Amino acid sequence: MNIKLVFRLLGAILLVEAAAMLPSLCIALGYGEGDALAFVWTILLILLVGLPMRLLSRVEQTNLRAREGFLIVSLSWVLLSVFGSLPFVISGVIPHPVDALFEAVSGFTTTGASIMTQIDSQPHGIMFWRSFTHWIGGMGVLVLTLALLPQMSGRTSHLVRAESPGPTLSKIVPRMGDTAKILYLIYGALTLLEFLLLMLAGMNAFDAAIHAFGTAGTGGFSNYGASVGHFDSALIDAIITVFMVLFGVNFVMYYKAITGAWHEIRANEELKWYLSIFFGAMLIITLIILPEQGNVFTALRYSSFQVASIISTTGFATADFDLWPVAARMLIFCVMFVGSCAGSTAGGMKICRIGMLSKQALREVRHSIQPRKTMVVRFDGKAVDEGVLRQVATFAFLYMILMILGGFLLSLEGKYDVQTNLTAALTCVSNVGPGLGAVGPSGNFAGYGPLSKLLLSFLMLAGRLEIFPMLALFHPATWRK
Amino acid sequence: MNIKLVFRLLGAILLVEAAAMLPSLCIALGYGEGDALAFVWTILLILLVGLPMRLLSRVEQTNLRAREGFLIVSLSWVLLSVFGSLPFVISGVIPHPVDALFEAVSGFTTTGASIMTQIDSQPHGIMFWRSFTHWIGGMGVLVLTLALLPQMSGRTSHLVRAESPGPTLSKIVPRMGDTAKILYLIYGALTLLEFLLLMLAGMNAFDAAIHAFGTAGTGGFSNYGASVGHFDSALIDAIITVFMVLFGVNFVMYYKAITGAWHEIRANEELKWYLSIFFGAMLIITLIILPEQGNVFTALRYSSFQVASIISTTGFATADFDLWPVAARMLIFCVMFVGSCAGSTAGGMKICRIGMLSKQALREVRHSIQPRKTMVVRFDGKAVDEGVLRQVATFAFLYMILMILGGFLLSLEGKYDVQTNLTAALTCVSNVGPGLGAVGPSGNFAGYGPLSKLLLSFLMLAGRLEIFPMLALFHPATWRK
Repeated sequence: MNIKLVFRLLGAILLVEAAAMLPSLCIALGYGEGDALAFVWTILLILLVGLPMRLLSRVEQTNLRAREGFLIVSLSWVLLSVFGSLPFVISGVIPHPVDALFEAVSGFTTTGASIMTQIDSQPHGIMFWRSFTHWIGGMGVLVLTLALLPQMSGRTSHLVRAESPGPTLSKIVPRMGDTAKILYLIYGALTLLEFLLLMLAGMNAFDAAIHAFGTAGTGGFSNYGASVGHFDSALIDAIITVFMVLFGVNFVMYYKAITGAWHEIRANEELKWYLSIFFGAMLIITLIILPEQGNVFTALRYSSFQVASIISTTGFATADFDLWPVAARMLIFCVMFVGSCAGSTAGGMKICRIGMLSKQALREVRHSIQPRKTMVVRFDGKAVDEGVLRQVATFAFLYMILMILGGFLLSLEGKYDVQTNLTAALTCVSNVGPGLGAVGPSGNFAGYGPLSKLLLSFLMLAGRLEIFPMLALFHPATWRK
Repeated sequence: MNIKLVFRLLGAILLVEAAAMLPSLCIALGYGEGDALAFVWTILLILLVGLPMRLLSRVEQTNLRAREGFLIVSLSWVLLSVFGSLPFVISGVIPHPVDALFEAVSGFTTTGASIMTQIDSQPHGIMFWRSFTHWIGGMGVLVLTLALLPQMSGRTSHLVRAESPGPTLSKIVPRMGDTAKILYLIYGALTLLEFLLLMLAGMNAFDAAIHAFGTAGTGGFSNYGASVGHFDSALIDAIITVFMVLFGVNFVMYYKAITGAWHEIRANEELKWYLSIFFGAMLIITLIILPEQGNVFTALRYSSFQVASIISTTGFATADFDLWPVAARMLIFCVMFVGSCAGSTAGGMKICRIGMLSKQALREVRHSIQPRKTMVVRFDGKAVDEGVLRQVATFAFLYMILMILGGFLLSLEGKYDVQTNLTAALTCVSNVGPGLGAVGPSGNFAGYGPLSKLLLSFLMLAGRLEIFPMLALFHPATWRK
């Protein structure tokens, strides 16, 4: 374990976080609502910890091994959340540290689950920071750090592999640092576009920024208790629906689009499944809620928004789907598992994993009939490595275990029913946000006790980092010399 | 596809079913409640179909391939259930054919889920047949057929592999037919022992037989609406608890015990996990329900019975666990997934599968830290074949898909909530019996519509045959010449 190298990189990440707080500080100063000092103190504290880590740990050798990569990724997300929660506590908006940590983890992991019961009248700086964590967490803070620190770009594929969503790493260009830059440029441009469109549709700049961050990171924090439903505008609903779907697409596709490689986009199997599932679920739910909504347009508006919100794991709400017929709720529950494309900012199991597992299942059925026939699983026209298949299957197993075990541990509180506890665990590990029952779109997570909130925070981090880096923290082999 | 061979074997199985109806016919004649004719007609009908299949399909070559084995197993279970449902319909006890089919499938698959709302005052012959299906289905009708038809014992491992629960086939002795005989002897001896003990504890012979069949097959049909709770006897509860646990053990262990190979039993990893999970869950639930039960003895009595009933996938009830605190219900839900040992009469995912997957997960976490290290997964001290691991992981994935998709399809009826539909699908695919909510221990499945009942019947069959044989029915490669 090269502990100096780990320290040095963690220091860099903390400095990036301090820099990321500057826009929130400016907004706090601009509105003058007394929350600016919270950011000043937090930034000073981060510098106090981060600068020595960065400067004192001089290292010659920068050969980063897999376990150091894992350790850096998991520790950096924990540190990020702990320091990111300080403005909430210091400003007094969320006085309890565990609550503040939950909110920060929920922000960075782009879950969007909240313990705040009063949202509509909070200081602007704090609300901006709360949503900005979505934007940083969406594409990944390590990717951001790599984009900013070009000298690190040598041996960093382990880092990006651990932080990027999806079973395989898709590099755009050979150098990881350049890939990180391109990803953040596309990400920034799409966010800006949504911001402008939302302003054109009638939002003020602050609201537009908050909702653009929430969509881009597929997080779902809003600065209104009624979420996007507050605006009650079909146009705003439509814009956000489209962008939620767009941010669930693998970002490599946008690079391909820019470079004109349209045939590669057309051939992308995951994208096809993603759009099919989105439109399929939307249609079915439209049919299910049609009787109570009265007309096709309204039913389509609400179903498309909710399905986009859940499949992209954003979690914005315009309707309380927990009041919909049970078949619609079950379908929402199914879509919550699936999530979007690998390489997007979304959570969930990822569609390519479900696709690979389905093909693997088909192969096993066939294998049981014709035991002597050798077959490979193909995805995107290429044979999938057996090691990747094994890892994907294990991932799915651990995902279920986290949900079920998480649901059981939550139920020890004895407060909520089976449905609430199971979907609370699932929505956190999938980084969606709302669940069903007491944690549904109109409820929130404030009712759970501190231990349950810590457990849910762990589940959110495990989900965002795709389980393995968080579990590796507990494996003795990670810590061995 | 050697269709003649398939026909010939299916004919043999039907003849075995006709023979298996004779005890019920005798009991019906003895009690003289008017249900004897239902058996006479059914037996005649079976002979009319089965004898020509058996006699007309003369085959020289008896080389059984995997897909023929799969086809025979899945078709035989469907045929068995269809003909097995006839006595219910003809006697008028369950007039609707879909209801009768559901009940027969539930019997043969040893699920024990019922659509009967009036249980306490039905003819004895019919009730005997209903429970006897558990006893046949528990060890497997093909195993029974092989035990009775020694000339078939040449190339039948494909058959037994498809019908036996567990990822690997454990032969006791080289000849499959002899293995089948030994298994049925142990099975019969244990059933007889329980029957005698239940009579000593105060049951009459008929009740003792019904509950011995229900325990042995890990089915759970009772001839009382209140299930085992009807007797309200701590002694009877204790006897049934012990036997439910015993019938969840791999039957090979009993053979080892008879032959004195105790060291092999002590070294059996699955058995250790099984007992640990049983005692662990029992202790936790005892603690959870202690406050409302008042004293340790009562809490222990109810928790040990319910945990044994769910882990062995029997489904007998002495208490309505749906009224227990949410943590106890969640733990029951977890245990429902797990099930018992491979090679027992119980359902569920089987403990060795969960064990292998857990070890596989540990390996993957370790692999992510040390990518270059080669590791094998060991179970019972032996390295597990990668093909078996792959199949186990796929099995777990399909299991989840069946539960979630099943839950969604059930919810299209719009009648029950998410919890009821999900646990109904899970309890059927696990062959347990009761779920939570409307299908809980005090509810039943009568409320679902005919299509839902057919779906649940499919899930029960898929669960009993461990998914692959049922899915193979739908794969074109099965039917190719």
